[in-house]
Amino acid sequence: MVKLLSEVKKAYIAGFLDGDGSIYVRAKPNSDYRFGFQIAPYIILFQSSKEKEKFTELCKLIGFGYMRERKDGVLEYTINKIADIREFLKAIYPFSILKKRQIELMLKILDAKEKIESESDFQALLELVDSYRSLNYSKKRINRVLTP
Amino acid sequence: MVKLLSEVKKAYIAGFLDGDGSIYVRAKPNSDYRFGFQIAPYIILFQSSKEKEKFTELCKLIGFGYMRERKDGVLEYTINKIADIREFLKAIYPFSILKKRQIELMLKILDAKEKIESESDFQALLELVDSYRSLNYSKKRINRVLTP
Repeated sequence: MVKLLSEVKKAYIAGFLDGDGSIYVRAKPNSDYRFGFQIAPYIILFQSSKEKEKFTELCKLIGFGYMRERKDGVLEYTINKIADIREFLKAIYPFSILKKRQIELMLKILDAKEKIESESDFQALLELVDSYRSLNYSKKRINRVLTP
Repeated sequence: MVKLLSEVKKAYIAGFLDGDGSIYVRAKPNSDYRFGFQIAPYIILFQSSKEKEKFTELCKLIGFGYMRERKDGVLEYTINKIADIREFLKAIYPFSILKKRQIELMLKILDAKEKIESESDFQALLELVDSYRSLNYSKKRINRVLTP
Protein backbone atom coordinates (compact mmCIF):
# COMPACT_ATOMS: atom_id res chain seq x y z
CA MET A 1 0.00 0.00 0.00
CA VAL A 2 1.29 3.35 -1.03
CA LYS A 3 0.70 5.01 2.33
CA LEU A 4 3.14 2.58 3.97
CA LEU A 5 5.97 3.38 1.58
CA SER A 6 9.04 5.37 2.65
CA GLU A 7 9.11 9.11 1.97
CA VAL A 8 11.76 8.52 -0.68
CA LYS A 9 9.51 6.09 -2.57
CA LYS A 10 6.50 8.40 -2.27
CA ALA A 11 8.61 11.28 -3.59
CA TYR A 12 9.74 9.15 -6.54
CA ILE A 13 6.14 8.28 -7.40
CA ALA A 14 5.11 11.96 -7.05
CA GLY A 15 7.88 12.88 -9.49
CA PHE A 16 6.83 10.15 -11.91
CA LEU A 17 3.21 11.30 -11.82
CA ASP A 18 4.23 14.96 -12.22
CA GLY A 19 6.38 14.05 -15.21
CA ASP A 20 4.17 11.71 -17.15
CA GLY A 21 0.97 10.91 -15.32
CA SER A 22 -2.61 12.06 -15.58
CA ILE A 23 -5.09 12.86 -12.86
CA TYR A 24 -8.28 12.92 -14.77
CA VAL A 25 -12.02 13.16 -14.21
CA ARG A 26 -14.99 12.85 -16.53
CA ALA A 27 -18.71 13.34 -16.15
CA LYS A 28 -19.99 10.60 -18.44
CA PRO A 29 -23.62 10.78 -19.57
CA ASN A 30 -25.21 7.61 -18.19
CA SER A 31 -28.94 7.16 -17.69
CA ASP A 32 -28.40 4.42 -15.09
CA TYR A 33 -27.22 7.10 -12.68
CA ARG A 34 -29.53 9.21 -10.58
CA PHE A 35 -28.60 12.58 -12.07
CA GLY A 36 -27.83 11.32 -15.57
CA PHE A 37 -24.05 11.31 -15.24
CA GLN A 38 -21.39 9.05 -13.89
CA ILE A 39 -18.50 10.95 -12.30
CA ALA A 40 -15.45 8.90 -13.24
CA PRO A 41 -12.04 9.85 -11.83
CA TYR A 42 -8.82 8.19 -12.93
CA ILE A 43 -5.14 8.29 -12.27
CA ILE A 44 -3.06 6.98 -15.13
CA LEU A 45 0.68 6.42 -15.45
CA PHE A 46 2.10 5.79 -18.90
CA GLN A 47 5.17 4.00 -20.13
CA SER A 48 6.52 2.41 -23.26
CA SER A 49 6.01 -1.36 -23.24
CA LYS A 50 9.77 -1.70 -23.80
CA GLU A 51 10.06 -0.96 -20.09
CA LYS A 52 7.39 -3.40 -18.98
CA GLU A 53 9.45 -5.19 -16.35
CA LYS A 54 10.66 -2.05 -14.56
CA PHE A 55 7.33 -0.30 -14.93
CA THR A 56 5.58 -3.32 -13.38
CA GLU A 57 8.04 -3.09 -10.49
CA LEU A 58 7.06 0.55 -9.98
CA CYS A 59 3.34 -0.19 -10.21
CA LYS A 60 3.65 -2.97 -7.64
CA LEU A 61 4.99 -0.38 -5.20
CA ILE A 62 1.72 1.48 -5.61
CA GLY A 63 -0.17 -1.73 -5.03
CA PHE A 64 -3.58 -1.06 -6.52
CA GLY A 65 -4.77 -0.30 -10.03
CA TYR A 66 -4.38 -2.39 -13.15
CA MET A 67 -2.10 -2.47 -16.16
CA ARG A 68 -3.12 -2.70 -19.75
CA GLU A 69 -1.05 -2.71 -22.91
CA ARG A 70 -2.41 -0.60 -25.74
CA LYS A 71 -2.08 -1.65 -29.35
CA ASP A 72 0.34 1.23 -29.97
CA GLY A 73 2.88 -0.21 -27.52
CA VAL A 74 2.06 1.98 -24.55
CA LEU A 75 1.44 0.60 -21.09
CA GLU A 76 -1.24 2.30 -19.03
CA TYR A 77 -1.48 1.75 -15.32
CA THR A 78 -4.89 2.93 -14.12
CA ILE A 79 -6.26 3.56 -10.65
CA ASN A 80 -10.01 4.11 -10.78
CA LYS A 81 -11.47 3.16 -7.40
CA ILE A 82 -12.36 6.17 -5.32
CA ALA A 83 -10.82 4.86 -2.09
CA ASP A 84 -7.60 3.95 -3.91
CA ILE A 85 -7.37 7.31 -5.68
CA ARG A 86 -7.87 9.11 -2.39
CA GLU A 87 -5.21 7.09 -0.58
CA PHE A 88 -2.79 7.46 -3.47
CA LEU A 89 -3.22 11.23 -3.77
CA LYS A 90 -2.96 11.83 -0.03
CA ALA A 91 0.25 9.82 0.15
CA ILE A 92 2.04 11.66 -2.64
CA TYR A 93 0.57 15.15 -2.16
CA PRO A 94 3.35 16.46 0.14
CA PHE A 95 5.95 15.56 -2.49
CA SER A 96 4.29 16.77 -5.67
CA ILE A 97 5.53 20.02 -7.20
CA LEU A 98 3.65 20.32 -10.50
CA LYS A 99 0.32 18.70 -9.71
CA LYS A 100 -0.46 20.06 -6.24
CA ARG A 101 -3.48 22.07 -7.45
CA GLN A 102 -4.85 19.12 -9.42
CA ILE A 103 -4.50 16.87 -6.36
CA GLU A 104 -6.23 19.39 -4.07
CA LEU A 105 -9.10 19.85 -6.48
CA MET A 106 -9.49 16.13 -7.15
CA LEU A 107 -9.69 15.40 -3.41
CA LYS A 108 -12.35 18.12 -3.15
CA ILE A 109 -14.29 16.47 -6.01
CA LEU A 110 -14.13 13.07 -4.32
CA ASP A 111 -15.39 14.59 -1.07
CA ALA A 112 -18.22 16.39 -2.86
CA LYS A 113 -19.16 13.17 -4.70
CA GLU A 114 -19.50 11.33 -1.43
CA LYS A 115 -21.77 13.97 0.10
CA ILE A 116 -24.30 14.35 -2.71
CA GLU A 117 -27.87 14.50 -1.48
CA SER A 118 -29.67 16.79 -3.90
CA GLU A 119 -29.60 17.84 -7.53
CA SER A 120 -28.04 21.16 -6.54
CA ASP A 121 -25.23 19.28 -4.79
CA PHE A 122 -24.75 17.37 -8.03
CA GLN A 123 -24.77 20.56 -10.06
CA ALA A 124 -22.05 21.98 -7.80
CA LEU A 125 -20.05 18.78 -8.31
CA LEU A 126 -20.36 19.09 -12.10
CA GLU A 127 -19.00 22.62 -11.85
CA LEU A 128 -16.04 21.39 -9.83
CA VAL A 129 -15.42 18.75 -12.51
CA ASP A 130 -15.52 21.44 -15.20
CA SER A 131 -13.11 23.66 -13.27
CA TYR A 132 -10.83 20.67 -12.88
CA ARG A 133 -10.82 19.98 -16.59
CA SER A 134 -9.95 23.58 -17.43
CA LEU A 135 -7.08 23.36 -14.94
CA ASN A 136 -5.80 20.13 -16.41
CA TYR A 137 -5.92 20.58 -20.14
CA SER A 138 -4.28 22.91 -22.54
CA LYS A 139 -5.35 23.03 -26.16
CA LYS A 140 -1.93 21.97 -27.21
CA ARG A 141 -0.86 18.42 -26.62
CA ILE A 142 2.72 17.73 -25.69
CA ASN A 143 4.79 16.60 -28.63
CA ARG A 144 7.73 14.72 -27.19
CA VAL A 145 9.86 14.52 -30.31
CA LEU A 146 13.39 15.55 -29.47
CA THR A 147 14.69 18.57 -31.31
CA PRO A 148 18.38 19.00 -30.55
CA MET B 1 23.44 21.85 -6.83
CA VAL B 2 21.64 18.59 -7.19
CA LYS B 3 24.14 16.59 -5.14
CA LEU B 4 23.36 18.70 -2.08
CA LEU B 5 19.61 18.06 -2.24
CA SER B 6 17.80 15.84 0.26
CA GLU B 7 17.17 12.20 -0.64
CA VAL B 8 13.47 13.01 -0.98
CA LYS B 9 14.15 15.72 -3.57
CA LYS B 10 16.60 13.52 -5.48
CA ALA B 11 14.00 10.74 -5.51
CA TYR B 12 11.36 13.15 -6.84
CA ILE B 13 13.68 14.25 -9.66
CA ALA B 14 14.54 10.62 -10.45
CA GLY B 15 10.82 9.88 -10.72
CA PHE B 16 10.24 12.91 -12.94
CA LEU B 17 13.07 11.90 -15.25
CA ASP B 18 11.87 8.27 -15.34
CA GLY B 19 8.38 9.45 -16.23
CA ASP B 20 8.99 12.07 -18.83
CA GLY B 21 12.68 12.77 -19.31
CA SER B 22 15.25 11.82 -21.87
CA ILE B 23 18.84 10.80 -21.42
CA TYR B 24 20.14 11.11 -24.89
CA VAL B 25 23.41 10.95 -26.83
CA ARG B 26 24.28 11.65 -30.43
CA ALA B 27 27.40 11.26 -32.52
CA LYS B 28 27.09 14.31 -34.76
CA PRO B 29 29.22 14.42 -37.92
CA ASN B 30 31.45 17.47 -37.48
CA SER B 31 34.69 17.98 -39.38
CA ASP B 32 36.02 20.36 -36.71
CA TYR B 33 36.48 17.37 -34.42
CA ARG B 34 39.51 15.12 -34.50
CA PHE B 35 37.68 11.93 -35.46
CA GLY B 36 34.96 13.58 -37.54
CA PHE B 37 32.21 13.38 -34.91
CA GLN B 38 31.11 15.36 -31.94
CA ILE B 39 29.74 13.19 -29.13
CA ALA B 40 26.86 15.20 -27.71
CA PRO B 41 25.04 13.95 -24.62
CA TYR B 42 21.90 15.60 -23.26
CA ILE B 43 19.45 15.27 -20.46
CA ILE B 44 16.09 16.82 -21.21
CA LEU B 45 13.01 17.27 -19.06
CA PHE B 46 9.76 18.25 -20.75
CA GLN B 47 6.67 20.05 -19.58
CA SER B 48 3.72 21.95 -20.97
CA SER B 49 4.30 25.70 -20.83
CA LYS B 50 1.04 25.95 -18.88
CA GLU B 51 3.10 24.76 -15.91
CA LYS B 52 5.99 27.15 -16.45
CA GLU B 53 6.11 28.54 -12.91
CA LYS B 54 6.13 25.18 -11.14
CA PHE B 55 8.42 23.62 -13.71
CA THR B 56 10.87 26.50 -13.26
CA GLU B 57 10.77 25.83 -9.51
CA LEU B 58 11.67 22.20 -10.16
CA CYS B 59 14.47 23.11 -12.56
CA LYS B 60 15.95 25.54 -10.07
CA LEU B 61 16.31 22.64 -7.65
CA ILE B 62 18.53 20.97 -10.23
CA GLY B 63 20.51 24.17 -10.59
CA PHE B 64 22.22 23.81 -13.95
CA GLY B 65 20.94 23.52 -17.48
CA TYR B 66 18.77 25.94 -19.39
CA MET B 67 15.11 26.27 -20.28
CA ARG B 68 13.67 26.99 -23.65
CA GLU B 69 10.10 27.26 -24.82
CA ARG B 70 9.30 25.60 -28.10
CA LYS B 71 6.85 27.05 -30.57
CA ASP B 72 4.45 24.19 -29.86
CA GLY B 73 4.04 25.20 -26.22
CA VAL B 74 6.45 22.69 -24.71
CA LEU B 75 9.15 23.68 -22.25
CA GLU B 76 12.44 21.86 -22.53
CA TYR B 77 14.97 21.98 -19.75
CA THR B 78 18.32 20.79 -21.10
CA ILE B 79 21.52 19.82 -19.35
CA ASN B 80 24.35 19.44 -21.86
CA LYS B 81 27.63 20.05 -20.05
CA ILE B 82 29.50 16.86 -19.35
CA ALA B 83 30.37 17.71 -15.73
CA ASP B 84 26.76 18.69 -15.02
CA ILE B 85 25.35 15.56 -16.64
CA ARG B 86 27.71 13.40 -14.63
CA GLU B 87 26.85 15.09 -11.32
CA PHE B 88 23.13 14.96 -12.10
CA LEU B 89 23.13 11.29 -13.04
CA LYS B 90 25.23 10.23 -10.06
CA ALA B 91 22.92 12.08 -7.68
CA ILE B 92 19.71 10.49 -8.93
CA TYR B 93 21.01 7.03 -9.88
CA PRO B 94 20.22 5.38 -6.52
CA PHE B 95 16.58 6.46 -6.83
CA SER B 96 15.85 5.70 -10.48
CA ILE B 97 13.80 2.61 -11.25
CA LEU B 98 13.20 2.79 -15.01
CA LYS B 99 16.36 4.41 -16.30
CA LYS B 100 19.06 2.71 -14.25
CA ARG B 101 20.58 0.98 -17.30
CA GLN B 102 20.54 4.18 -19.32
CA ILE B 103 22.28 6.04 -16.50
CA GLU B 104 24.95 3.35 -16.11
CA LEU B 105 25.67 3.28 -19.82
CA MET B 106 25.70 7.07 -20.14
CA LEU B 107 28.23 7.38 -17.29
CA LYS B 108 30.34 4.75 -19.07
CA ILE B 109 30.15 6.79 -22.30
CA LEU B 110 31.22 9.97 -20.49
CA ASP B 111 34.18 8.13 -18.95
CA ALA B 112 35.18 6.67 -22.31
CA LYS B 113 34.91 10.10 -23.94
CA GLU B 114 37.30 11.55 -21.41
CA LYS B 115 39.89 8.85 -21.97
CA ILE B 116 40.09 8.89 -25.76
CA GLU B 117 43.64 8.74 -27.07
CA SER B 118 43.41 6.84 -30.33
CA GLU B 119 41.06 6.21 -33.22
CA SER B 120 40.33 2.75 -31.85
CA ASP B 121 39.30 4.30 -28.52
CA PHE B 122 37.00 6.56 -30.51
CA GLN B 123 35.61 3.62 -32.46
CA ALA B 124 34.83 1.85 -29.17
CA LEU B 125 33.09 5.00 -27.95
CA LEU B 126 30.96 5.16 -31.09
CA GLU B 127 29.92 1.56 -30.48
CA LEU B 128 28.91 2.44 -26.93
CA VAL B 129 26.87 5.35 -28.29
CA ASP B 130 25.16 2.99 -30.75
CA SER B 131 24.39 0.48 -28.02
CA TYR B 132 22.98 3.30 -25.93
CA ARG B 133 20.69 4.42 -28.71
CA SER B 134 19.33 0.93 -29.25
CA LEU B 135 18.65 0.73 -25.50
CA ASN B 136 16.88 4.05 -25.45
CA TYR B 137 14.63 4.09 -28.47
CA SER B 138 11.78 2.02 -29.62
CA LYS B 139 10.39 2.48 -33.10
CA LYS B 140 7.08 3.50 -31.64
CA ARG B 141 6.77 6.88 -30.03
CA ILE B 142 4.56 7.26 -27.02
CA ASN B 143 1.17 8.63 -27.86
CA ARG B 144 -0.19 10.17 -24.70
CA VAL B 145 -3.78 10.60 -25.79
CA LEU B 146 -6.06 9.31 -23.06
CA THR B 147 -8.30 6.45 -24.04
CA PRO B 148 -10.73 5.78 -21.18
